[in-house]
Amino acid sequence: MKIRNIPGGVTAAAGFSAACCAAGIKYAGRTDMAMLFSDVPCQTAGTFTSNRFKAAPVLWDMEIVYGAKTAQAVVVNAGIANACTGEEGLSLCRATAECAGEALHIPASSVLLGSTGVIGPQLPLDKLSFGVRQMASSLSGSAEAGTAASRAIMTTDTVNKEAALAIDLPAEDGSTVTVHLGGMSKGSGMIHPNMCTMLAYLTTDIAIAQPLLQKALSEVVQDTFNMISVDGDTSTNDTLLILANGLAGNRPVLQEDDSYALFRDALFTLCRTLAVKMAGDGEGATHLIEMRVTHADTKENARVLARSVVSSSLVKAMIFGKDANCGRVLCALGYAGPAFDPAKVELTLNGADGDLCFYRNGNVLAFDEEKALRILSETEIRFTCDMGAGDAEATAWGCDLTYDYVKINGDYRS
Amino acid sequence: MKIRNIPGGVTAAAGFSAACCAAGIKYAGRTDMAMLFSDVPCQTAGTFTSNRFKAAPVLWDMEIVYGAKTAQAVVVNAGIANACTGEEGLSLCRATAECAGEALHIPASSVLLGSTGVIGPQLPLDKLSFGVRQMASSLSGSAEAGTAASRAIMTTDTVNKEAALAIDLPAEDGSTVTVHLGGMSKGSGMIHPNMCTMLAYLTTDIAIAQPLLQKALSEVVQDTFNMISVDGDTSTNDTLLILANGLAGNRPVLQEDDSYALFRDALFTLCRTLAVKMAGDGEGATHLIEMRVTHADTKENARVLARSVVSSSLVKAMIFGKDANCGRVLCALGYAGPAFDPAKVELTLNGADGDLCFYRNGNVLAFDEEKALRILSETEIRFTCDMGAGDAEATAWGCDLTYDYVKINGDYRS
Repeated sequence: MKIRNIPGGVTAAAGFSAACCAAGIKYAGRTDMAMLFSDVPCQTAGTFTSNRFKAAPVLWDMEIVYGAKTAQAVVVNAGIANACTGEEGLSLCRATAECAGEALHIPASSVLLGSTGVIGPQLPLDKLSFGVRQMASSLSGSAEAGTAASRAIMTTDTVNKEAALAIDLPAEDGSTVTVHLGGMSKGSGMIHPNMCTMLAYLTTDIAIAQPLLQKALSEVVQDTFNMISVDGDTSTNDTLLILANGLAGNRPVLQEDDSYALFRDALFTLCRTLAVKMAGDGEGATHLIEMRVTHADTKENARVLARSVVSSSLVKAMIFGKDANCGRVLCALGYAGPAFDPAKVELTLNGADGDLCFYRNGNVLAFDEEKALRILSETEIRFTCDMGAGDAEATAWGCDLTYDYVKINGDYRS
Repeated sequence: MKIRNIPGGVTAAAGFSAACCAAGIKYAGRTDMAMLFSDVPCQTAGTFTSNRFKAAPVLWDMEIVYGAKTAQAVVVNAGIANACTGEEGLSLCRATAECAGEALHIPASSVLLGSTGVIGPQLPLDKLSFGVRQMASSLSGSAEAGTAASRAIMTTDTVNKEAALAIDLPAEDGSTVTVHLGGMSKGSGMIHPNMCTMLAYLTTDIAIAQPLLQKALSEVVQDTFNMISVDGDTSTNDTLLILANGLAGNRPVLQEDDSYALFRDALFTLCRTLAVKMAGDGEGATHLIEMRVTHADTKENARVLARSVVSSSLVKAMIFGKDANCGRVLCALGYAGPAFDPAKVELTLNGADGDLCFYRNGNVLAFDEEKALRILSETEIRFTCDMGAGDAEATAWGCDLTYDYVKINGDYRS
C-alpha cells in the first residue's frame, strides 16, 4: 500500500505537538481550547468560508495564509464563534495571537486562530489568555495529546474526528523516508461547505513548496470537504488549514512530479476520511448518506447533482424513517440545476448484500420492500445514480434529518 | 378600496363551477379529486416546475398552456403524483382528459390536469374515470363547491387554502362592472418553488388578451409563490394555472393600461394571500416566518437574500425553539450569494408591540431577552434586514422546522 493508515491525528507528523485546556469560555466541565505547535516554522495553506459574514479569526487567518504563508502555531476555541463581532472581535484575535506568540516565543503573525460556537457574543480575553498560557506550557507530541485536542474543539459533535496517514518519499540522498499527514476536524451543524468546511486542521512533516501545498489543498477540498452537507447552512467560520514543517527529510517537492502526486493522493484520502466522519456525525444523525453520481456530462454537474441529494430535507427525513421513497432522490436530482435526460437515468440503492434498482428507462420499478427496509436499516446508506451522459463522476456525503437535529437546533444557545 | 376581499375561492368568478369526489386513489374516507369547469372556453396561462423530472400532468398542461392557450376544465387528484411514470403516465393523462372531455362535452385538449402525492406509482385509471364522471354530473357554482374542491386536493396540508377578490373595471358601454378573481392552492411539503409552487388554480371572469394574462401571472409569481419555502425541495409537479373566461363583461383588456394595472395588482394580492397561507401551513409548522429585505442593490439580490433566510434549517429550527439566535439569520444572508457590506447591514425583529434591533454597524447588539421571547412566541415571526445599499426590496415567507416535519416525512408513504 502506497498510502498507509497510521494511528493518531495532528501529532502524527514529526515536530508537531498539541495541548488543550478547560478555559470555561462557555461550557463547564470539559476542555474548550486546543493548541497546535510545530518545532519549526511551517509552509501554510488554507481555504475559508465563502460566507459574506466572515468571522474575525477567519479574517485573521486569511491575512496570514494569503500573506506570509508561514505559521508555527494554531489556537482554537469552542463555545463562541467570534463572528459578527466587529472591530472588537478583531482586536481580540490580535490580543490572543500576541499572548500565544509571547508564550511560545514566536511572532504573533505566526499564530493562526480558529473559533466555533455561537455567533454574536465577544470572547472573554482573560479566559483566552489564561488558556493560551496553560496550553503553551503543556504541549506534547504524544498521540494522546492530539486526540485530546480533537476533543476540545467539539461543539455538538458526538465523537471526535481525527486521522493520520503515512507515505514514503525519496530523500535527498536517494534513500526513502516516511512522510506523515495527520488531521482533526469538528462539525457538526452549519455544515454545507462552499469553500471548505467548519474547522479542520492538518499537519504534515513533508518538505514542499507553499504554492504546491495550496494547490493540492484547494484541489482535494472540492471532492472532500466541499461534498458534505448536514443542513445546507454555510458557516461564518469554515476554515481548513494545513501546516507543513519539512521535518520528514524528504527531497523537497518543488514541482508536480510523482512525489507531489502521491502526497496529493494521501491528502485527498485524509480529507475524505475527515469529511465523511463529519457528515456521519451531523447533528442528531443516525445514518450516513453517500450519493455517488456516475456518467455525468461534467465533473461540476456530477458534484452539483450529488450534493443536491444529500442536502434534500425530504431525502434526509426519508432515510431517518427507513422509507424507500426513491422519488425524492429523483426529485432532488431534477431540481439541482444541471440538464439531463430523465429517460437515461438509472438509480440504485447499494446494500451490503446486493443492490436494488429503483428507476430505469423513465420508470420507477417495482422492488422488494423487505430488502429495501433491510438496506435502509444499515448505518451507511449508499445510492448510485448513473446519468447516462458522459464520463464524469462525484460523490457527496450527508446525514439523515432527525428529531434530534430539531431538538439540538431549537435550543442551541442554552 | 380598489381591491376588495370577497368570500369564496375558485367559484367566485362568474361562470365557474366546481366539484369533488372520493375516488379512493390512495386515501380512505376523504375526497381526493377536484374538478373546475367554466361555462365557456377560457384564456389560459400558467407557470410550471423547473424540475428536470416533470410529472406527466405538468407535461400535459405545458402543451396546452404554451400551445392553444385555451382550456375549459381542470381535473386534479391527490395521493399519487403521476411523476417518474414514463409513457404509461402520459397515456393516463390522455385517457383522463378524454374521459373528462366526453363527460363535459368539450375537447380533451381543453382539459388541464394536476396530480399531487407520491412519486413513482401509476394512477388507477378506473378510479380516475369513475371520479371524473361523478364530478362532471355534480358541478356547482356555489361557494361551498369551491371550498370542497380546495379540500379535496390537500395532502399533508392541515387547512384548505382559498381566497377571492373583486375589482371594478370599465365595461364597453362606459359603465362599471365587477371583475372577480378566486383561487385555491395546496402545499405543504416539497415546497421551494423555482417557477411557481405546488398546485394552485386561479379563476377569473375578466376579459383579457392571453399574452397579458400570461405576463401578469409570470410577473406576480416572482414575488409571491416563488418567495416561499417549506423545505427547499422543488417538486416535480409544481403547477400554477389561471383561467379567464371573460364573463364579467368588462371592456377586454388588450394593452397595459389602467385596467391591466389594477388586474395585475389584484392578481398579486390573490397570489400573495395563497402563497403565505401555504408557507404558514408548511408540514409540521407552528410559525410563519416573514423575511423582508430592504435597501438591497438589486431586486433579484433582495429576493435571493430573503429566500436564503426562510430556507435555512438553522433559522427554521431556532424559530421553532423560540431562540433569539440572530447570528443564524446573518449567517444565512452571508452565504446567500449576493455581495454586500456586513458593516452596513441592520437586522430587526418586528414584534406586535415594537421592534428589536439585533445587529448594526458590524456588531451584534445586546437585547432584552424577555422581549425577544415574547415576540418569538407570536404565530407570525417577522424580520426586516436593511442592506444599506440601494432601493430594492423583497419579502419571502417560510415556516419553522419542527419534530412534526421530521415525523411526517420520515414516514410519508404509509
